[in-house]
Formats: sequence, structure tokens, C-alpha cells
Amino acid sequence: MKIGMLGLGTVGGGVAKILESPSGRTPLLFKVELVQVGVRDLTKPRHNSLPPQKLTTHLEKIVTDAEIDIVVEVMGGLEPARTLILKAIENGKHVVTANKSLIAAYGSEIFASAKDKGVCIAFEAAVGGGIPIIQCLKQSLGANKIKQITGIVNGTTNYILSQMAQKGVSFDDALQDAMQKGYAEANPTADVDGIDATEKLAILALVGFGIKVDCQKIFKTGIRSISQRDIAYAKAMNYTIKLLANARLNEDDSLQLNVQPHFVENSHPLAAINDVFNAIFLEGDPVGQLMLYGQGAGEGATASAVVSDILNIVSSSASWQNIHVKSSKLASASQEMESNFYLRVVTEKIATAAGAIAWSLGDFNVPPMSVQQQITKEGVLEIAIITESVFRSTLDNAIGSIRGLPYVKEVANVLPILEAQ
Amino acid sequence: MKIGMLGLGTVGGGVAKILESPSGRTPLLFKVELVQVGVRDLTKPRHNSLPPQKLTTHLEKIVTDAEIDIVVEVMGGLEPARTLILKAIENGKHVVTANKSLIAAYGSEIFASAKDKGVCIAFEAAVGGGIPIIQCLKQSLGANKIKQITGIVNGTTNYILSQMAQKGVSFDDALQDAMQKGYAEANPTADVDGIDATEKLAILALVGFGIKVDCQKIFKTGIRSISQRDIAYAKAMNYTIKLLANARLNEDDSLQLNVQPHFVENSHPLAAINDVFNAIFLEGDPVGQLMLYGQGAGEGATASAVVSDILNIVSSSASWQNIHVKSSKLASASQEMESNFYLRVVTEKIATAAGAIAWSLGDFNVPPMSVQQQITKEGVLEIAIITESVFRSTLDNAIGSIRGLPYVKEVANVLPILEAQ
Repeated sequence: MKIGMLGLGTVGGGVAKILESPSGRTPLLFKVELVQVGVRDLTKPRHNSLPPQKLTTHLEKIVTDAEIDIVVEVMGGLEPARTLILKAIENGKHVVTANKSLIAAYGSEIFASAKDKGVCIAFEAAVGGGIPIIQCLKQSLGANKIKQITGIVNGTTNYILSQMAQKGVSFDDALQDAMQKGYAEANPTADVDGIDATEKLAILALVGFGIKVDCQKIFKTGIRSISQRDIAYAKAMNYTIKLLANARLNEDDSLQLNVQPHFVENSHPLAAINDVFNAIFLEGDPVGQLMLYGQGAGEGATASAVVSDILNIVSSSASWQNIHVKSSKLASASQEMESNFYLRVVTEKIATAAGAIAWSLGDFNVPPMSVQQQITKEGVLEIAIITESVFRSTLDNAIGSIRGLPYVKEVANVLPILEAQ
Repeated sequence: MKIGMLGLGTVGGGVAKILESPSGRTPLLFKVELVQVGVRDLTKPRHNSLPPQKLTTHLEKIVTDAEIDIVVEVMGGLEPARTLILKAIENGKHVVTANKSLIAAYGSEIFASAKDKGVCIAFEAAVGGGIPIIQCLKQSLGANKIKQITGIVNGTTNYILSQMAQKGVSFDDALQDAMQKGYAEANPTADVDGIDATEKLAILALVGFGIKVDCQKIFKTGIRSISQRDIAYAKAMNYTIKLLANARLNEDDSLQLNVQPHFVENSHPLAAINDVFNAIFLEGDPVGQLMLYGQGAGEGATASAVVSDILNIVSSSASWQNIHVKSSKLASASQEMESNFYLRVVTEKIATAAGAIAWSLGDFNVPPMSVQQQITKEGVLEIAIITESVFRSTLDNAIGSIRGLPYVKEVANVLPILEAQ
């Protein structure tokens, strides 16, 4: 099988390294040859052993070349990646891509076009780096009805939250640290505001549930609102704060989707996932709970996933690779999620404040399960509450009423809770 | 594809349930039909919807029937399972088995015979229940050189150790509890003495490293020696005790294998795996660290794995399914493992005891990293030591000398340590 690759950045370099040193790995790698690599600039110095005659700036030539069987797209971005991939498919080539944004936005269009032409489209590297979650959902769990997928799919925010919890630093300091280490970009909004996680969630919804989702419609909040106060209460009450991407099938087969920081019970396996690591937890019938953990980014992990896709195509498990996109419904409002919640309310120093707030919650059918209070060094009263499981809209009504209480200064944070089962 | 199944116990019943209710699962299931099920007793009452004419007591007929494409063996035990599977292969049938002991003992013989006949042999359910570790090693990580596999692969012992740590109960009480809950058998030796874990480790060595291992030659110790004292020291020093099955490739490409309770650093993801859950942690080049977590036993999880194997065969990824058993060497002595160690030494109440023991260790090139001591309620002195990384034989020399000290009553436990990286 002859391979043409679009892009030779970090991931492309990692893929080339594996393909050029097959020994000690699976013998299948000897059936594969990297014949052309499309780059922007031929003169750029590169750290690999690729003979220069394999490099070309004619990307279009790679996707139309009759000699090439598989096109590997590791250039990133929506265009020209989308056009090149569609042209590769049109020319009967299998496609492997690591392009998360592209699959999140145009996945079902690309899958349909691949199905028409009878070629494979594989994208293991698009979610969770080296974690084989896509293959696991498509193959190993094929016998299952997936009920829920909950993932820590963004390493940058997990690093920031881990630093805040372990070192007691503020969000801003942890973000600076992540930038210095190269984990966060100069403009960190795609990570810290949950955009990256939302794209990955859309892909998981497509593969795990066969449901096409517009990323814009996924309810999301990032981690900018998380303060050391929230981290401290989480610790005291035996939780860890994690940014989770959540997809849950309702009883009526509609799909609940959201990206939000959660209080995760410490005995839940997701609570132990630290630093830049990713993990995807899921529940299937009949497999029960399953979690996959690994490096969510980086040259080696991502290249491992890309080459695994190539090998799957080489071993011709083509039919198994198809994603069956069903027409199914999204839950009407993704934020309408039933869950226990954590609230942090700041009030004036009044002895009856906690009681009145707890009473108010109960009055709105939001029974408080646990209430902790404390005078902060700023001299205000802070009340942390864990509620029973309620709908978010019910909670919001109760919060509205709490905000109306004369001595309440602020409802400082509201986070859903992931309980260990 | 027509399926004949040998056995209709817990796992067989689970498999039948999935095959008889394909809707809501992968469309591939509609290509599969369960046509015959071999049982011992036709009159036994069964909780499933299988029409009685599909049941037969002629197991031999199933493995030779020209109509059948895939034989699923879920009867367990070495014989007649081995003979039936070999006969099925001889007759050109693909084979799916959940039989851990059989693959551990006769895996390479069965693989060779399947290769000769050009059929698939699949056994995802043999290790880790519903965790797709076999497929992950064979497919998703195909591009990797596996460096290390470390697993919690026995749910019974993990449940016992979790109960001891969480509830403070003794080994005997935790074992009784496990028996009452149906997690441990009346004769618990296969679980608590590490035999089950050793068989699973042999299979992981075969799949992950292509190395055939005689289970008898794997160094193993079970969990009977673990006391509340060890659990308490582990907690105090930020570790959790877990029974680990370990396979590690040495620099010289020899393979280190052992099954032993370990001190696992709390920040290591394996430390958070509790109750009957299993997890397999591994390190590959270039993927880095990866961990798979899930239910290691039970009808649903195991049936999910068996059906996943069936689907893989149906999608004809036959070539990819082959295990390439290399001729490679086992490390000369599996117990010759370099590691940090935990020691618990019981001595008479002498102020210089801890110092003398620490000095003794240093004298034998076993530098102690951390020493804690305490007078027990029995009025003896107990000294817990974490050593630097040393060879087990070096440590054993030092322990011999410590045992010779006049006031040392006992070296009560010695466990290797798994550090978080």
C-alpha cells in the first residue's frame, strides 16, 4: 500500500518516523510505503530521514496520484484540508486524518462521500491522542448500546485544574505556567473556554451514538470561573473539579450533550486523571463501565493513532470501519440535565443566612444534601451546598430566588456533580 | 455467518442474549446467526429465548458441521475444550473462546494450527472481561513497541484489598465477604494465590510481546501475606497495595514477568482502581502511557468481549488477527527485578534498632529512602522502610543480614513498589 501524506509538522514527523522504522513493530508495517509528503516549504530544515525527493509542494497531485492508495491528512485547519480530502475520496483513496475540527464540522459529509466511493475514512487521532477510543467504540464495543460517554478530552484545561488543586495556584498563574510549558497557546480560548472539548464531543456523539451534532448547539462553559475557593470546597467535600465533555442517552433516545466543569466524586476513576492526560469513561449495555486513559496530545501519541488507522485499512477491515449515522434527536435543551449540583453562595455575616438559603432551595424542590459554611478572610459568609439530583431549570428557579434575598451578595459558582456509581 | 456455541452457562447465556436482540447495536449483528448451542443437559431450565431445537448435546457435531462458520467456546476447562477447538480449526472454522486457562496453556499450539488452516482465533474475553485489551494490543497499538504491561487482572483479590483498605477489615474477613458476594469461590486459591493472574499475564505476554511463557515459570506471590499493618503503612506513606501482573521488556529484549502485591504510588492511575474492577496499564513507544479500565468479569462484560470477537471475524479482518509468536527470551530469573521495595521489620523495643537496620541495608547497597517506626499495641517495635531501587537478590542479601540481628523478630513483609512516573 502506498501512502501520500499532507503535512509534515509535529504529527506528520511522528508518522514518518514510525513508517521509516518498522522493525520491532507489527510486520504489517512492511506492507506500507510512504511515497510522497506534501509540505508548504521545501527548503525548511527538518529532523527526519525522509529522502528529499519524497517531498512536494503539489498537494493536489498527492490526492489525485493513481499510485497512492491512502492519503494521510495531518496539515490541520478546515481548508484546504476539506477540499483535498474530498478530492482524495473522489479519486478512490482511503483517508486517514488527525483533523478534529474538520471531522467535527464536516464528518458526516465526508463519511457519506467515502461510503459512496467504497473507501475508508479513519480519524483515531482526532479525539484523545493515542487513546484508541474511536476504534474501541466502532469495533470492540460494537455489540453494545452506548448509554453515556464522559471524557476529560482537553489536556490543557486538565493541566490547569490539576495545578490549581495540587499547588494552590490561581487560574491565571496556572494558565501562565501552561503557556510556558507549551501546553497552552498564546490565545488559550479554544482550550479554556471549552471549544476544543466541544469539537471532540461532537465526534464522540457521531461515533458512539451515530448522531450528527452542530458544535454551536452544544451547551458549554469553560474553566475561567473556577476559583481556589471552589477547589477548596471540592477537596473538603471529597470531590475533584474536572472539565468534562458529556454525552448521555435519555430514556426517550434523545441525546444530552454538554461541556462543563464538574465536581467529580473522588472515588470515580475520572477524579484521578491528572496533568495533561486525557481519559474517556463510558457506559455500555452489556459491557458496563469502561475507561480509557492516555496521552491526549503530542507527537508520539498522535502518530501512534494515525499509524493504527493506516494498519486497519491495510488489513482491509473496511466494512467494519463505516460509521452508521442514524437520524436521531438531540435533547431539546442540552442544559436541561438532571444532576446533583454544587453551589457557592456569598452572603453578609448573618446567622440565619445558611438556614434561609437551604429553606429556599427546599421550597423550590431542590433539597440540599450537604451545607458547609465559613467566614472568609474578606469578612463575608460563604456557603457551599451540594444539592440532591434536580433539573438545571429547577435549580435556576431556586437560584433566582436566592439572588433575591437581601443579604445575598453573589451566587459565585454552580457546577454539576459526577457521582461515582 | 452461522455460529455454533459450546456451552450455555453465564457467559454463553450473555452471548445468546446479544445475538438474539441485535436491534440498537451494530448492523453487523444482523449478518450473524446463532444456529446451534452445545450443552450437557437438555432438560436444565434456562432463562433465555433460544428455541429448544437449537440445543444439542453433540458437541462434536457442532465443530464438524459444514453449515457452521464460527465456533464460540464458552464451556471452560482444558478438556474437552482443547480437543474441540482444534477439531473446529481442522474443519476450517473460525474460533472465539473466553477460555483463559486454555489460551495460557495451549495458546501458541492453537494459534499455529489456526494459521495453518487460515482461520481466526480470537479470545478477547480471556483477559480483563469487557476491557478490549487484546484488540488494543493487536490493532490500535500495532505501530508500537510495547515496553511494559502492568495490570490489575483479578477482580477477587482487588475486591479483598479494597475492602481491607476502605473498611479496615482483616484478609480473612474480606475473603469471607467476597465469598458471600459471589466474588470468590469456595476454594479461593486460584484467585488469592495469584494463579488466575499468572494465566492472564501469560496471555498478555503472548499478545503484547509475542512471547510464549510457561505459567509455572512465572514468579508469583498472592495476597495472603498482606496484613492491616502493611495497609496502614502504605496509607501513611501515600501508597495503595494492589496485586499486579507485570511484564516488562529489559534493555536486552528479555522479558521480566511476575505476579506480586505491590505498593502503588497514589498518584499512579492504577492506585485508584477499586473493588472488582480490572485495569491494564501499559507503556508503548511511541504512544506513551495508556490504561484501560473496566469490569473484569460477569455475564455482560464477558459477553460483550465475545461478541466483539465475532464481529471482528465477520468483518473479515483476518490477517490483522494473527498473533506473531516470536522466539524471544524470558529474563533468566523473573524475580530478579529492579525496583524500590517496602519492608516491614518487627524488632524488640531497642532505641538503636531502626538505625542499625538502616545502616545494615546501606552496607548491602540498599539505601533506605524512608524509615518510619512505631511501637505496636503488642509492645514490639515495628519499622517500615522504603528502599531505593535495587535488584531483588541484592535486597535478599540485606534481608538475610537483618534477620541475623539478635533483636529482630521478623521481616514481616517485603513488597515491590510501583512509582508514578
